[in-house]
Amino acid sequence: MTRSNAFAVTPKNLSAVGHTCALEINASALIDNYQLLRSKVGKNCEVAAVVKANAYGLGLEFVAPILESAGCEFFYVANLNEGIKLRSISDKKIAVMAGCWRGEEDEFIRHHLIPVLISVEQVENWPTQHPCIWHIDTGMNRLGIETDQIAKLIHLPHFCAGKAANLPLYMMTHFTSSEVLDESSAAQVAKFDQSLKNAGIGRDRGVTIPQSLCNSSAIFRDEEWHRQQVRAGMALYGLNPTPYLPQNPMRDVVRLSARILQVRHAKKGETVGYNQTYTIPQDTILAVIGYGYADGFHRAGSNKSNVYWHGVPCPVRGLVSMDLSIVDIGHLHAQHSSIHSLIPLPKAGDEMDILPDSAAIEQLARDWNTNVYEILTSISPRARRAVME
Amino acid sequence: MTRSNAFAVTPKNLSAVGHTCALEINASALIDNYQLLRSKVGKNCEVAAVVKANAYGLGLEFVAPILESAGCEFFYVANLNEGIKLRSISDKKIAVMAGCWRGEEDEFIRHHLIPVLISVEQVENWPTQHPCIWHIDTGMNRLGIETDQIAKLIHLPHFCAGKAANLPLYMMTHFTSSEVLDESSAAQVAKFDQSLKNAGIGRDRGVTIPQSLCNSSAIFRDEEWHRQQVRAGMALYGLNPTPYLPQNPMRDVVRLSARILQVRHAKKGETVGYNQTYTIPQDTILAVIGYGYADGFHRAGSNKSNVYWHGVPCPVRGLVSMDLSIVDIGHLHAQHSSIHSLIPLPKAGDEMDILPDSAAIEQLARDWNTNVYEILTSISPRARRAVME
Repeated sequence: MTRSNAFAVTPKNLSAVGHTCALEINASALIDNYQLLRSKVGKNCEVAAVVKANAYGLGLEFVAPILESAGCEFFYVANLNEGIKLRSISDKKIAVMAGCWRGEEDEFIRHHLIPVLISVEQVENWPTQHPCIWHIDTGMNRLGIETDQIAKLIHLPHFCAGKAANLPLYMMTHFTSSEVLDESSAAQVAKFDQSLKNAGIGRDRGVTIPQSLCNSSAIFRDEEWHRQQVRAGMALYGLNPTPYLPQNPMRDVVRLSARILQVRHAKKGETVGYNQTYTIPQDTILAVIGYGYADGFHRAGSNKSNVYWHGVPCPVRGLVSMDLSIVDIGHLHAQHSSIHSLIPLPKAGDEMDILPDSAAIEQLARDWNTNVYEILTSISPRARRAVME
Repeated sequence: MTRSNAFAVTPKNLSAVGHTCALEINASALIDNYQLLRSKVGKNCEVAAVVKANAYGLGLEFVAPILESAGCEFFYVANLNEGIKLRSISDKKIAVMAGCWRGEEDEFIRHHLIPVLISVEQVENWPTQHPCIWHIDTGMNRLGIETDQIAKLIHLPHFCAGKAANLPLYMMTHFTSSEVLDESSAAQVAKFDQSLKNAGIGRDRGVTIPQSLCNSSAIFRDEEWHRQQVRAGMALYGLNPTPYLPQNPMRDVVRLSARILQVRHAKKGETVGYNQTYTIPQDTILAVIGYGYADGFHRAGSNKSNVYWHGVPCPVRGLVSMDLSIVDIGHLHAQHSSIHSLIPLPKAGDEMDILPDSAAIEQLARDWNTNVYEILTSISPRARRAVME
């Protein structure tokens, strides 16, 4: 696999003109990750791909076709608008997490979208000749039908008409902490199972409804939880679903880089950036990169986080600005002159790495006191998206 | 001015279908803000509008036409790609802050874009029969030409050919802290003035070049700094350029709201959201809103920030999720039953305010330990944009 130059200006691809930052999606790694999850769950369980929030910030129009080429037949998005966008590029099954709102039914049906119904009212309103999914809340206290409502709903006339086709496509629930090796996920599964049993649902009751429980981390917990469908998000994109293990089982999918707009010599005692929050302790060399908080580098990284040059961390100096950040590269020059180094020195026009790998994503999440997901979803449309084959 | 319903589903506007959050741009307030700045600087000074970063997150395609209708003739964007996008909807002057890179000259000229040249190399490479701006660094240590380089550059053959048309359109610099009433801005002006004088530029030297110094806050500082052009950004969008005064002189332009997807009764001892970071101290009612960190509500707001219902703050409970946040509305119900209240109770489908006004933007910036700009630029494309006339 060759490293693409995401900033190359070619007449064929004008969309590549004039960006200062770029996000590369490694297609073969994304496919490998999908296949790994398939092999984990076996052939009797479907691996749906969660592509909400613009495919976790990567770019829906790039990610969805790659996942389809890997064999994905089922997608989840957050809301109807995302569903309509995805439908314009995919003929696979698409489920919408936010449910169907009164008045939106026609839009769902017209675009062949499957609502994840989140409340009694939504279930009562949905025309059950069209497929739907029921979301049962087992502890998030977020979206979903209360467990004690299932029995009432499943015996509504339009469900109990004896037509299996009118039953929900899946009964789903969502784990609060499946990446943590405690008892909370097992407790949610037990609550889910008991509530279905109480409602008279189960193979021994004659009413069988497939189940969808696992997110990425839960896939790696208990095989018994896989049931008929799992919903993979973060693991597809190379984030670590097993933080309790020393090794991330997934391949890195994302590489984010930014162009150096200027290299400056700065003298001891000078200040850097807005509000002069950093004073230079000794003469150094600064690189100004075209990546700021409007691109997704939170101001929380000011005077704290690093970007990378051939793997060497270069610290951010001063406050991150809207379109730019200033990083110290003085140590690269010192190293270059003191030892025989094969690493070239960065110059204006070169790219520095913001997120060279998933370890860098995890480091930023620690720096900014957030999770790895927010690092990805913060990457703005201003970063050019490109796919590496 | 009537309050629009940004979530209304009408056959005429399918782009309004299925969003769970919406950003309203108050066109008359934006126009008033532009006019206020014009009146501040007088008729001999141009008010350029800074619309980089998708017009500070508001939406370039909505903001630029409104500013044009207010009389704006000059825009600033961050990079060439933003310039090309703006050119597709505007025939006004457009300057590009990141400068012109070797190989990009033809793109600049083809789209009639004006580069803000940031380095000696960029000045040397630019074909000076086309307009350009020079950025002089006077203390940011970010982008710009060093003050001691100006003399050399202005006497390059292609500038000193005696053709006034070949001189830069503007000499600009950028303040580090113009919103702070200290001496730093005056020191930057003095450094700028002295460096031009040293380079033989000035009315008394026969070489006159217009100047562009002020950002929004600087416009409100010293009239003498206005010179021939000011560059207004944040003040246009209703953010306060005078934080040292009790009153924001600008009108609010932004209103951001999100739909309630579900209202839930929650019992004492239950937990909320991922990783169970909030335990409910007494029975309450929760509203789940369709606005999460992928929309722009940073996880830094978890268990800390408020959203608003008819102006009443409602605290976020638990961790903010990617597409959803959970807020407590129990106090609204308690208040409603104990006093004669004219405020209706929120129900599923209603909108809660995320950013009802600029005071709420300032509060979020304090909560998240960042600035008001990052609050706006974090608002993702998933929020539907709508203009209120």
